[in-house]
Amino acid sequence: MIERLSNYVAGQWQAGTGAGTPLVDPVLGNELVRVDATGLDLAAAFAYAREQGGKALRALSYRQRAAILADVVKVLQANRDAYEEIATANSGTVKNDSAVDIDGGVYTLSTYARLGVGLGDRRFLIDGEPASLGKEALFQSQHVMVPTRGLALFINAFNFPSWGLWEKAAPALLSGVPVVIKPATATAWLTQRMVKDVVDSGLLPPGALSVVCGSSAGLLDALEPFDVLSFTGSAETAQLIRSHAAVAQRSVRVNIEADSLNSALLLEGAVAGDAAFELLVKEVAREMTQKSGQKCTAIRRVFVPEALYGAVAEAISARLGKTSVGNPRNESVRMGALVNRAQLDAVRAGLATLLSQAEALHDGAKHALVDADPAVACCVGPTLLGTRAADAADRVHDTEVFGPVATLMPYRDAGHALALIQRGQGSLAVSIYGSDAAALGATALELAAGHGRVHVVSPDVAAMHTGHGNVMPQSLHGGPGRAGGGEELGGARALNFYHRRAAIQASTSVLSPMVG
Amino acid sequence: MIERLSNYVAGQWQAGTGAGTPLVDPVLGNELVRVDATGLDLAAAFAYAREQGGKALRALSYRQRAAILADVVKVLQANRDAYEEIATANSGTVKNDSAVDIDGGVYTLSTYARLGVGLGDRRFLIDGEPASLGKEALFQSQHVMVPTRGLALFINAFNFPSWGLWEKAAPALLSGVPVVIKPATATAWLTQRMVKDVVDSGLLPPGALSVVCGSSAGLLDALEPFDVLSFTGSAETAQLIRSHAAVAQRSVRVNIEADSLNSALLLEGAVAGDAAFELLVKEVAREMTQKSGQKCTAIRRVFVPEALYGAVAEAISARLGKTSVGNPRNESVRMGALVNRAQLDAVRAGLATLLSQAEALHDGAKHALVDADPAVACCVGPTLLGTRAADAADRVHDTEVFGPVATLMPYRDAGHALALIQRGQGSLAVSIYGSDAAALGATALELAAGHGRVHVVSPDVAAMHTGHGNVMPQSLHGGPGRAGGGEELGGARALNFYHRRAAIQASTSVLSPMVG
Repeated sequence: MIERLSNYVAGQWQAGTGAGTPLVDPVLGNELVRVDATGLDLAAAFAYAREQGGKALRALSYRQRAAILADVVKVLQANRDAYEEIATANSGTVKNDSAVDIDGGVYTLSTYARLGVGLGDRRFLIDGEPASLGKEALFQSQHVMVPTRGLALFINAFNFPSWGLWEKAAPALLSGVPVVIKPATATAWLTQRMVKDVVDSGLLPPGALSVVCGSSAGLLDALEPFDVLSFTGSAETAQLIRSHAAVAQRSVRVNIEADSLNSALLLEGAVAGDAAFELLVKEVAREMTQKSGQKCTAIRRVFVPEALYGAVAEAISARLGKTSVGNPRNESVRMGALVNRAQLDAVRAGLATLLSQAEALHDGAKHALVDADPAVACCVGPTLLGTRAADAADRVHDTEVFGPVATLMPYRDAGHALALIQRGQGSLAVSIYGSDAAALGATALELAAGHGRVHVVSPDVAAMHTGHGNVMPQSLHGGPGRAGGGEELGGARALNFYHRRAAIQASTSVLSPMVG
Repeated sequence: MIERLSNYVAGQWQAGTGAGTPLVDPVLGNELVRVDATGLDLAAAFAYAREQGGKALRALSYRQRAAILADVVKVLQANRDAYEEIATANSGTVKNDSAVDIDGGVYTLSTYARLGVGLGDRRFLIDGEPASLGKEALFQSQHVMVPTRGLALFINAFNFPSWGLWEKAAPALLSGVPVVIKPATATAWLTQRMVKDVVDSGLLPPGALSVVCGSSAGLLDALEPFDVLSFTGSAETAQLIRSHAAVAQRSVRVNIEADSLNSALLLEGAVAGDAAFELLVKEVAREMTQKSGQKCTAIRRVFVPEALYGAVAEAISARLGKTSVGNPRNESVRMGALVNRAQLDAVRAGLATLLSQAEALHDGAKHALVDADPAVACCVGPTLLGTRAADAADRVHDTEVFGPVATLMPYRDAGHALALIQRGQGSLAVSIYGSDAAALGATALELAAGHGRVHVVSPDVAAMHTGHGNVMPQSLHGGPGRAGGGEELGGARALNFYHRRAAIQASTSVLSPMVG
C-alpha cells in the first residue's frame, strides 16, 4: 500500500480527495508515495493562517521567534537520518548532494535563529534615524518596518525540498509572518516530512506553518493584498504568476527566482596550470556535477582567454571523466540521477539545442552508469560543450539546461568578456578567477549590476572560498532580468520582504517612547 | 495657430507625425497646445538614453550629479513665472495649489541635491558591513548597490506635472540612471516646458533626460530587463502594466502608485471643540479642497467617535461653506477647477455611487461658481458625505472619487475604527488626531502595516505639522494593496529602486581597496 501524504492546513492534517500523483525513485523507477491536494478549502486554510498564525507570531518578539527557530533546528537535526533516506530515494542524490539540501537548510535556519537574537525584544524594526520635518525639531519622520498582516506563500522548485523551504521560512517566521509551503510535486516528500516533524513538535503556534502537496491550483486565487508570494521555478510559470489577479490587481508582493545562465570568468593574465586556472577548472567541474547540475546557481557558461581555450577544455574534461555516475547507494558513485524522466528528457532536448551551436568537448552520454539500469534510471553523465564562436552562439546565452552541462567559450579581451556575460541578461551568480586583486575588484563591480552575487576566487582564498553555486545566508540570493529580479537572504535584508515599511510623522513626544 | 509641443528623445526635439491631442483650459474651455508622439522611434530613443545618457551619468560621482541637480533647481526657479502661468491655464489651479506642484517639485529636487553631497565621490553605494563567510576572516561578503544599467521610464498622473516629474527624476538622476518622462496628456505642458528649460540649460549630459508627450503606445514594448518603470495612476492601468511582457517576462522592475482610500482618525477621548477635534476638522477641509481634492494622498474617509459625528459634520461643513470655487484668476477664489471634463464626469459618477450608501452633509453642487461659466468650467464645490452605517457602506471603502469629496463615519471603539480603516485594503496615508501620546503611538504602529505613511497630529505640533496629504521627500511615499505596493522618496531610500544590490564575496585583499 503506497502512503498518501497529508496536507497540513487550518491546523489539521487533511488528505486530498483525488487519486493523487505518484512520487518516483529516479534511479530504481518504483513509486514511493503519493501527494494530493484536491478538495482542500484553501480560502479557509489561508484565513486560518493569517488570523491564527499571524496573530500568534506577531504577539512574540523577534527574540522569542528566534528561540523557536533554534528549537526547530534541533528537531530537524534529530530526524536527519530519515531526511537523507527520503532524499536518496526521491531525489536520487548521493550523500554529499543530499547534505547540500538538508544541512544547507538547517544551517540557514540556524543562521536566522542567531540573527534574530540580536533583534531583541521588539515586535517591529526601526528603519534608520528620525528626520526633522521643517525648521523645528519637534515634528519628525521616523521609518519603521512592521510585519505584513498576511501570509507568505512559497511555491518552490524540485531541486531543494529542504533548503528551499527553510531559506524562505526562516526569515518569514522570524519576521512574524505565517508560512504556507507548496513544494514541487516531484520531491514534495522531504518538505512534507520536515513540516510534519516541526508540526508534531508543537513548537510553532497553530497556523504558523502549513503545507500543501500536489497541484498549485487555486493557491494564487486565495491570496489577498497583504500576503506575499515567493516563487522559485521557470520563467514561464513566473510570467503566469506576475499576470495573475492576485499580483496584477491585488498588489500581492512577489519575489521571483527564475532561469539563470550563470558565468565563470577566468581573467586575462592566467597561465595554463597556474593557481587561478586550476581554481576555475576545479570549480566548473564541481558545479557541473554537484546535484547533477540541478542548481539554479550552477555555472552554465565558462569564459576564458582565447589562448587558454584548449587547455581549459582538456583540464575540465579530465576531471569530468573521473566522475562516476549512477545509483547513489553505491559508495563509488559521485553523481546520482536527475530528478525524474521529464527532467532527463528536458536535459537531452536542451543539449540538442546547444549542440546546434556548440560541440561536445566531453560527452556525458558516454559515461557508463554504475549500479543503474540505463533504461530505468534518470542518470546522465556530465557534458562540457564548447564553441569558439561565442558571439554567434545565441542559444548558449539564453538556454538554461538544468543538468550537468556547461559551455566553454573564449574571449578576446576584458570588454569582450563582459559583453558576453551580459548576453545572459541578468544572472544569479558569476564567479571570477584571477590573481590580481585590483583587476578582480574592478571586474566584480562591473558585473554587480547584472548579478545578485559576484563570487571572487583568488589563490589566497583557495582553501576557504564558499563555492560559486553555494548560497550563503549572509549574502543576497537573486538576480535581475532573466533571473527574475528577486532578492532573498542577505542576512537581515531577507526580513524586508516580510515587513511593510512606513514613515511615522509625529511629535517627538509620540515618537520617542515608541522607538525606545 | 496652436503650438504643437515637441518630444525630446535621442538628443533631439522631434515632433509627432499625427494630428495631435489638444490640451484645454478647464475653466475657460479653450485649446492651449497640442501634444503628439506618433511615429517616434522609441527603440532608438531608449537605446540612446541607455547608452549615451546612462554611460555619461555613471561616469559622474554622486557628488557631481548632486551638483547638477542643484543647478537644475536654479534653472527651474528662474522660470517659475512661466510655470505658474501654464498651471493656471492648463490645470485650473489657484496660486497656492499651483505652488504645491511647482515648488513641491523644486523642493524635492533640492532635497536630493543636498542628500547627494553626503554620498561623496563614489560611483556606487556600500550596503552594510562585510560579513565573514566561515571561520577565518579572510573570505567575506560585502553588499554593494550599483546603478542599474538601463533607463527609468516614468508614466505619470495628471495632477502633479511638476512634482510628479521631479520626485521621481531627482533620485533617478542622482543614482546615475537616465530618465524618460511620459506625462499625463491632459497636463503635459508644464512637464514638457520644465524638461525643455533643463535641456536648453545644457546641464545634463545628452540622453539623461527625455520627454514623450502624447500616447503611451509602444513605450512598454521598448523596455529591456535592466530598465525600471515607475507608474502613478489608476489601478486598471497598473494591472495592464504588471501583465505586460516587459514586466511579466523581462522582469523590468516596476513601482506602482495607484488608488487610495486614505483615512483620517479622531481618537477616542476628543471633545467637540477641543484641540484635536479642531485639528481634524481643519485638516479634512483643507485636504478636500486643496487642488480640488485631486491628490492621491487626500483624505477620503473620516472616522470619528460616535458621539462626535454630528459636531464634526457641522464643523467641516461650516468650513467648506466658506470655500469660494471658480476661476483661479480671481483673487477671491480658494478652489479652482478639476483638470478636465472627463474628470468632472468621473467625480459626478463617483458621487452618485457613494450617495447610494451615504448622504450629503454638505453639498458641493450648491456652491455658486465665481467668475466661471458652469456650462464650460470643470468646477465643482466640495461635498462632505456621511453615513452612520460604516460597516455596510462597501462603496465608501472601495471607491476613490478623485475630487473634493470625503465621507464621514462614526466608530464604536478603537478596534472598530482600525477594522474600518483596514477596509480600504492598503492606503498611501492615514492621519491620527489626539492628545494622548501613548495612544497616538500605539495607533500609529497598528496602522503602519496598511499605510506607507502615518501622520500623527497632536496639539503640540499644530503649528508645524506638514499636513496629511503633503508628501515630504524625507518620508516614504507609497502604500500596500490597493495603493499599488510601491515605495518612493523616503530620503536615501528612494535610490534603492534605481540601484541593483549585489553581494561581492571575495578575499579582504580584493574587498578592502574596493570599499575604500
